[in-house]
Amino acid sequence: MKSTYFTPGPAELFPTFAQHLQTAMDEQLGSISHRSQRFRDIYAHTDEQLRELLNIPKTHAIFFTGSASEIWERLLLNCVEHESFHTVNGSFSRKFYDYANALHKFAHILEKPFGQGFDAAEIEVPEYAELVCLTHNETSSGVQMRPSEMHKLKRKYPQKLFCVDMVSSAPYPDLDYSLIDSAFFSVQKAFGMPAGMGVWIANEKCLAKAERLQKYESLTIGAHNTLPMLWKNYQTFETPATPNVLFIYVLGKIAEDFNKIGIATIRKQTEEKAKTIYKFLEKSDRFEPFVSAERYRSRTVIVANTKKPAGELIAATKQAGMVVGSGYGKLKDSQIRIANFPATSAEQVDALLRELSR
Amino acid sequence: MKSTYFTPGPAELFPTFAQHLQTAMDEQLGSISHRSQRFRDIYAHTDEQLRELLNIPKTHAIFFTGSASEIWERLLLNCVEHESFHTVNGSFSRKFYDYANALHKFAHILEKPFGQGFDAAEIEVPEYAELVCLTHNETSSGVQMRPSEMHKLKRKYPQKLFCVDMVSSAPYPDLDYSLIDSAFFSVQKAFGMPAGMGVWIANEKCLAKAERLQKYESLTIGAHNTLPMLWKNYQTFETPATPNVLFIYVLGKIAEDFNKIGIATIRKQTEEKAKTIYKFLEKSDRFEPFVSAERYRSRTVIVANTKKPAGELIAATKQAGMVVGSGYGKLKDSQIRIANFPATSAEQVDALLRELSR
Repeated sequence: MKSTYFTPGPAELFPTFAQHLQTAMDEQLGSISHRSQRFRDIYAHTDEQLRELLNIPKTHAIFFTGSASEIWERLLLNCVEHESFHTVNGSFSRKFYDYANALHKFAHILEKPFGQGFDAAEIEVPEYAELVCLTHNETSSGVQMRPSEMHKLKRKYPQKLFCVDMVSSAPYPDLDYSLIDSAFFSVQKAFGMPAGMGVWIANEKCLAKAERLQKYESLTIGAHNTLPMLWKNYQTFETPATPNVLFIYVLGKIAEDFNKIGIATIRKQTEEKAKTIYKFLEKSDRFEPFVSAERYRSRTVIVANTKKPAGELIAATKQAGMVVGSGYGKLKDSQIRIANFPATSAEQVDALLRELSR
Repeated sequence: MKSTYFTPGPAELFPTFAQHLQTAMDEQLGSISHRSQRFRDIYAHTDEQLRELLNIPKTHAIFFTGSASEIWERLLLNCVEHESFHTVNGSFSRKFYDYANALHKFAHILEKPFGQGFDAAEIEVPEYAELVCLTHNETSSGVQMRPSEMHKLKRKYPQKLFCVDMVSSAPYPDLDYSLIDSAFFSVQKAFGMPAGMGVWIANEKCLAKAERLQKYESLTIGAHNTLPMLWKNYQTFETPATPNVLFIYVLGKIAEDFNKIGIATIRKQTEEKAKTIYKFLEKSDRFEPFVSAERYRSRTVIVANTKKPAGELIAATKQAGMVVGSGYGKLKDSQIRIANFPATSAEQVDALLRELSR
């Protein structure tokens, strides 16, 4: 018997995944050349479907990498000469900050405890910060930052490049790409695919910055998947190195499925399922929502404090064919994380909540 | 009707690939956590099978990246403070050299024209070169460098780190890992998988170098997939970022299949099929082997000059259900490339040669 995965990524596969994978196998997409017209058509299709889904304008290009973590590094190498700025309230936003330090950038940090969120009004971006690094959904703590707050902040600092980590929430956040210069996600979260690929959206301003930095002798923008090289290849829907053709194809098909459902419907369903889960947690005497302020509560990765040891709960739920995520790091014993991605239906969520109240 | 791919990567999938992929889907490996015991067991199994196949000692660890191109960058960042040395005789060995320049390393080059090969005796490694970058199989030109020559060279320069690009030949080259500090390949070549993952083998000397460089303020070893971070995670068969779990699993199963056949048999079959193809090319009045010297002729990517325009030949062969590769870059019109990987049998090679002589 198969289980239903409510884990925050790798996660439940989207119901159409297996069928798209089968088509890819039937059409031998694992063997075609990445310099062929067939591949260029696949890239163009995925590009088109993601643009429609996320409302991405022509100013932005879409690239593929090995993971979203790789994109942290590429963004910092390509878009920061000296200084970056990071809002940090969990393990993944901290890793982005750690990457900046490892690359010897001067990284500014505005930190809040695990479980707390950010609003535009309280954020002061340092004068010389070139890239503002925001996390839409902090996967470790289940905290979101509202897109409207991100947009407000950018309006306050229009000259700075803004990037948004939406690894565990895309396509949920409705970003305004006239304000957001770059955003990225990985496919094993809300897109319901196996892990192994990151998706990087970046605009011409990011490219211009990378091209400028590339001329400096005092620093390097890296050698692999540099923005200028990705962009050049993107002009003909190619990639600098051999890409994950199979995954690019399947991502395009799942984005197409999402578009058929409609992004408004997907967002509404996400909000309704999230509401159901939070309501359950609030009423339950076994759980409570970890994030107290409603406006900061993630809609896609919901973290709950548990009264019982979390390990016991997770094991019992697994017995019933449902897998929830453990708390992150030190919170492993006292928290569970429930992913709320398009792959799991309202009925499946109901079944999980029934099991959790048993 | 499905075609047989004799393209040099992406290439024909190994016959067992589909079945391993199906098992992975049945066992929901696309959804399991990469911090679970199930994943650690998968990594350990793949590690064990690759060790057996390639005779990798305990001094070396095995890591996974998004592509082999990424490994070029990681090696240069982690193992070169100032100077690298590159033998270049085609487009891919040149890209490795280009990466070193892009990272502002002082890159020494020993270059030969497309189609020519290297022997140890003619190679003088510059005094301050820290990393010697050799290419076992130059995919663009179909030239190999014999492992015995690589070993000879290392014995002449035992203090330097040696790395071998075996992207389009592994598991064919019989490297002596007591001499070779690092080697790497990608899965879409001789392992008969779809593209999307690189495999990096590196020893403790590479790690020690990276750890030393990491302490310097004047340079960075990068932030993503650094050798110290990969190594640390490897101790428990984990990865720093979410890896391509599905591909790691399938790679382990294909390596297991290879081990069942036996590496000696695989190498012998590779040599026999290569011999058949070269003999055909030499006898044919339509083709000739591009690489004239027998000792430099690749056993896994065989390049032929064509009398007819290569495009016509490729199209005609495609009609018959067989896909051969085009010449690389400017040689597109006058060459074809025939991959000779374990996925294609002696019978399939015979069928191809019959078609090419029609």
